[in-house]
Amino acid sequence: MENSKVLALAGGVGGAKLALGLRDILDEESLAIVVNTGDDEEFFGLHVSPDLDTVMYTLGGIANPDTGWGISGETFRSLNRLRQYGADTWFNLGDLDMATHIRRTQLLGQGNTLSEVTNSLCSSLGIAHSIFPMTDDTLRTVVITEISEMSFQEYFVKNRCDPRVISLRFDSPSECSPSPGFVTALNESDLLVFCPSNPFLSVDPILAVPGVRKKIENFRGARVAVSPIVGGEAIKGPAGKILRELGHEVSCVGVAKRYVDLCDVFIIDNVDADLASTIEKLGMRVVVTNTIMNNDQEKRTLAREILSLDY
Amino acid sequence: MENSKVLALAGGVGGAKLALGLRDILDEESLAIVVNTGDDEEFFGLHVSPDLDTVMYTLGGIANPDTGWGISGETFRSLNRLRQYGADTWFNLGDLDMATHIRRTQLLGQGNTLSEVTNSLCSSLGIAHSIFPMTDDTLRTVVITEISEMSFQEYFVKNRCDPRVISLRFDSPSECSPSPGFVTALNESDLLVFCPSNPFLSVDPILAVPGVRKKIENFRGARVAVSPIVGGEAIKGPAGKILRELGHEVSCVGVAKRYVDLCDVFIIDNVDADLASTIEKLGMRVVVTNTIMNNDQEKRTLAREILSLDY
Repeated sequence: MENSKVLALAGGVGGAKLALGLRDILDEESLAIVVNTGDDEEFFGLHVSPDLDTVMYTLGGIANPDTGWGISGETFRSLNRLRQYGADTWFNLGDLDMATHIRRTQLLGQGNTLSEVTNSLCSSLGIAHSIFPMTDDTLRTVVITEISEMSFQEYFVKNRCDPRVISLRFDSPSECSPSPGFVTALNESDLLVFCPSNPFLSVDPILAVPGVRKKIENFRGARVAVSPIVGGEAIKGPAGKILRELGHEVSCVGVAKRYVDLCDVFIIDNVDADLASTIEKLGMRVVVTNTIMNNDQEKRTLAREILSLDY
Repeated sequence: MENSKVLALAGGVGGAKLALGLRDILDEESLAIVVNTGDDEEFFGLHVSPDLDTVMYTLGGIANPDTGWGISGETFRSLNRLRQYGADTWFNLGDLDMATHIRRTQLLGQGNTLSEVTNSLCSSLGIAHSIFPMTDDTLRTVVITEISEMSFQEYFVKNRCDPRVISLRFDSPSECSPSPGFVTALNESDLLVFCPSNPFLSVDPILAVPGVRKKIENFRGARVAVSPIVGGEAIKGPAGKILRELGHEVSCVGVAKRYVDLCDVFIIDNVDADLASTIEKLGMRVVVTNTIMNNDQEKRTLAREILSLDY
């Protein structure tokens, strides 16, 4: 598959890891990375796109590997002053990161689409491969919890994923369609990769963009997903907790069930090898390998393995 | 006059110095500082009010004394990244300063007036005395130069006051009136102080706010102005150059002529003592003293002298 076109769907940290591995192997023409924007939010009037930024900073080589968000060597002078000014500063934005949001907001305000803005930011960071938002329109993940409805960031950051999740909803205040880059990639790619991202909070918003689920069901090429749940827990983030709270099995099987009709090959970690046959009964081929990606070498190894599968 | 109400009109650095002196002597109830906003401008979509900030940072004790703008110990991480992103970064905005503009823009976007926003920022910086913008509406100083028309900041910062000035204009895209605090101070103050600010770029915009010139002509109390031109040159900034280019005398006399009908007492520096009689012929009383204000002690001394004059 190394000369084919690949479309990778990604959320935050896990998605960014595999996206980096794919980027290191594939040339610019052969890879499109489409990123969840359901957790975009305004802070201080600035448009923040956390998942886009995680992928962008990761591919730009400036991501902070310790936090899983933000930029390496970041400072927080502006944010601390904003706090002094009475602004609501529960969402950490560093001084370098702030520049991204200021510039994004400025360019959006000038009438550019989020795709155009993302392309401009990526170019400035020396990223040659295409990163597209799932949509240039607004589609927001709403987390309905036991205490109240809240935005994804309110759930994830402000409330540290603490409240019990009852359900999720994706709100689109007006018309919403996939971004042009996403549409092209859906039509022209030979391989669709669901990166190991949270199925509810990263993948479902992408699938909620009108028309996308149908296009993926009818995708011309092969479709492969990597489980973000390994050994019964998420590598990072609240995927395990949410699976449990929504009554799903907290395992790669629980994730696989959400990919029925969307995915041909499901990749699980070696530690979950005994679950392979259960997933195969869902109608997917299962590949068992190391999915953890502790370093860039392992990211490339997983990416290469995905590309070299016999679809 | 120490128990009376004082209204001080200020532009940037020179105005901020005398405002600080007055603040150190007068209690909160006795002083209103009204600041030029003709040089406000949007950078990266953020509302920047340079003169308001200079006065606010000065009274908040955080102004950078070396530059005459910005905050002491400032860093420029966000701005450098904005430059990398292709933003037009000729206007220096530090990381702490950026917080001011982000917060101001956010609060304005929420429907607050510039007066309300300024009050909020000042409170956060521990400033008890009232600082008001001249107007809550838009009134922009346009500098018509030999090369083109430009905003004040384009003239002052981007072009370093280099192009020859042909004339100045104050543009108001819609209705413009003095801010409520300015109106109250004009009606209730016993003493009006023109701080030593640029007469064209700092004072004229204030006078250009509809109704203000008439109210100052009919002001109930005494009116005093401090010359920003000392010994034939401005203490700081382009006042001397502009006086010359517009065909005025580059001296405190040239400034005094612009205050005819607006001012009862004109304060000049000791070095200009020989010009006192010329200014008196314009119909103003002249006071000769040290006006330079090299340190806070001298700011208070000048302020005290202004307040103790026998009006």
